[in-house]
Amino acid sequence: MMTIDENLKFNAEGLIPAIIQDHSTGRVLMMAWMNRASLQKTIESGKTVFWSRSRQKLWMKGETSGHTQTIKDIALDCDGDTLLIQVDQVGAACHEGYRSCFFRSVRDGVLELTEARLETPE
Amino acid sequence: MMTIDENLKFNAEGLIPAIIQDHSTGRVLMMAWMNRASLQKTIESGKTVFWSRSRQKLWMKGETSGHTQTIKDIALDCDGDTLLIQVDQVGAACHEGYRSCFFRSVRDGVLELTEARLETPE
Repeated sequence: MMTIDENLKFNAEGLIPAIIQDHSTGRVLMMAWMNRASLQKTIESGKTVFWSRSRQKLWMKGETSGHTQTIKDIALDCDGDTLLIQVDQVGAACHEGYRSCFFRSVRDGVLELTEARLETPE
Repeated sequence: MMTIDENLKFNAEGLIPAIIQDHSTGRVLMMAWMNRASLQKTIESGKTVFWSRSRQKLWMKGETSGHTQTIKDIALDCDGDTLLIQVDQVGAACHEGYRSCFFRSVRDGVLELTEARLETPE
């Protein structure tokens, strides 16, 4: 019996990247960072809680916008240094109002929008 | 006209995380790191090339195993600090022989295998 705690490798800042994927569509929504406390809160609350590197504090995704992410699955990679979390996303994952933060792709060396805004930016 | 170069933010080590997703199934296969040179080689060659932090060198995914990744799309996130790359994956993305490196999930606090091995480990 192996627990997730025994298998995780946090980086020198005590952080691990978490890839957030829409459970129903498979769309990758965002990538954010967790520390041990935010992962623990994520597991306990059933909603994603990240570590903000810029604000140096925990934040529950959607705490002000209402765009919460309900956990459906938490996976880790072979090296134990990346998380892949399946969620049910309310509204836009991106603070710029797009469903996914990955709303631009490279086409012939230039960035192009690949999706329409769902909401006005926060 | 914005190019990807103007919009990318590499970290203090000159690296950016690249999430690799199976173009046909939507399965997230792995996460690895790129520097500016490996991204340039990825774009030029049409195959993923990463920066190995442990070996401190560029590596083309599949150069020894044959498990190459052919690029279908390169997206970046709102902050420009994460890449999402759609690929056609040959065989197993994971060196442990699984299609995806994310072959374990947390179930009731314990890690469980969520997929079968495709190949013997490298």
